[in-house]
Amino acid sequence: MELWYTEEWTNEVRFGIKVKNHLFSQKSDFQQIDIFDSYEFGKILTIDGLIMASEKDEFIYHDMIVHPAMATNPHVKRVLVIGAGDGGTVRELTRYAGIERIDMVEIDEVVTRACQKHLPLTAGKLEDPRVNLIFDDGVKFVQAAKDASYDLVIVDSTDPISVGAGLFTTEFYTDCFRILSANGILVNQHESPYFEANALEMKRAHSKLAKIFPIAQVYQAHIPTYPSGHWLFGFASKSLHPTKAPKLADWEKLGLETKYYNQALHFGAFALPTYVREMLTDAKKG
Amino acid sequence: MELWYTEEWTNEVRFGIKVKNHLFSQKSDFQQIDIFDSYEFGKILTIDGLIMASEKDEFIYHDMIVHPAMATNPHVKRVLVIGAGDGGTVRELTRYAGIERIDMVEIDEVVTRACQKHLPLTAGKLEDPRVNLIFDDGVKFVQAAKDASYDLVIVDSTDPISVGAGLFTTEFYTDCFRILSANGILVNQHESPYFEANALEMKRAHSKLAKIFPIAQVYQAHIPTYPSGHWLFGFASKSLHPTKAPKLADWEKLGLETKYYNQALHFGAFALPTYVREMLTDAKKG
Repeated sequence: MELWYTEEWTNEVRFGIKVKNHLFSQKSDFQQIDIFDSYEFGKILTIDGLIMASEKDEFIYHDMIVHPAMATNPHVKRVLVIGAGDGGTVRELTRYAGIERIDMVEIDEVVTRACQKHLPLTAGKLEDPRVNLIFDDGVKFVQAAKDASYDLVIVDSTDPISVGAGLFTTEFYTDCFRILSANGILVNQHESPYFEANALEMKRAHSKLAKIFPIAQVYQAHIPTYPSGHWLFGFASKSLHPTKAPKLADWEKLGLETKYYNQALHFGAFALPTYVREMLTDAKKG
Repeated sequence: MELWYTEEWTNEVRFGIKVKNHLFSQKSDFQQIDIFDSYEFGKILTIDGLIMASEKDEFIYHDMIVHPAMATNPHVKRVLVIGAGDGGTVRELTRYAGIERIDMVEIDEVVTRACQKHLPLTAGKLEDPRVNLIFDDGVKFVQAAKDASYDLVIVDSTDPISVGAGLFTTEFYTDCFRILSANGILVNQHESPYFEANALEMKRAHSKLAKIFPIAQVYQAHIPTYPSGHWLFGFASKSLHPTKAPKLADWEKLGLETKYYNQALHFGAFALPTYVREMLTDAKKG
């Protein structure tokens, strides 16, 4: 018998992965969560039939959702992480000795507990004493949080359907702005420019962020297990520009080894293809 | 009835595309050639069951196999193109008024004739008076070509299996070096770092090129219809470095509109992820 996981990237495009074992399957109050082991990608977490993280390439996503912001401001001390149930974002953040506090707000405890059991590669640093694990709705959390409480907010969410939808709204971004300090940075997973449905969400998110934050940039990475492999992140900030004056020398002094991110790539990631730039420009006009 | 094209990216990973019509299918003396129309990607050319070009994203591949070299030396006059049967590489080259001669050497006439009929988007400029269409073996062609005959050689080949294999050898690269002028540049499709079989060929190609050319760099693009979506190109040259002194101002003056390539991306494309850099460094040592 052969077992294959099939992901529908669009109605007319499929991505298939040969599966060794189906390790975990549960419908939580919020979503369908599965973990399986595969030949090519190692263990994979899916939510509602979409890959969130695989052992083979989670390093790309987690490098890129954390290090560009940290190299722009290596003096970040207080971090809020929304979503990120697999723990990979927190793992990368805990590598910074200067970070004093990481509040991680994940709506679905089932995701995190499943990853702690089956995906220690990503979830292995959630016990760090600086991490406060809060199982709650990120939207409500930022509404209640005090002004200027954080230097960095990372929104590591599912797509803007069902449970992730609230994390792509103007109200949510406005709260993020308010709870960020004067040098504050917001990073979020920002969909993809390639398939139409993803591109629409990318444009919506950018249009909203650009109205709220003085600096709103988009950067990219090669993440083969996400639809099209061309995935984007949003970088929005109150004052610090990611490519005009990043603190790369300070970041280098930290001596962190990274398998995807590096100094040259810091700039390269923000160098978007012309068609993506045009989509973002149109989005801001619209 | 639903018709699906399935491509095996590895034995354990598949990419599937819903097909409208199968337009062309022929086994030539060299390979199996198919053209079909799809919902998501428009018309697609496959050779031996691998996608070569799709209407949706061929612009990415063809921008990136042509413009980085032309922006490094906008004064290129004589170009040799090996392979490139779909005509897209030649289409981009014909946009440069300064190019005087394009010799295109494709081993398989069936590919080109099929694309002229079914894929005019890529094949539509093969009638340009500067283009000499030669249906012959590229390996033999470069063996017979005179020293310093070309300013640019572009190797737009299939993977280094079956008919493409000769285009990934030390002997072939040595001939390319010999037939290039003092400022000559060789660009080749350079496989991918992500899946093991592709990465092995990438390392082999780079190791060979770096032994022959004083400058041997690798750059990347997001090409979603190729395995993993993370595809590489080789840039090898006798004297011109692609990122140290490209002639971007001269290139801008040409006023070419490009949907993927742009000045910032010229540098960004050469900013490889750490894991890819390490593979290339190891390859040179090995």
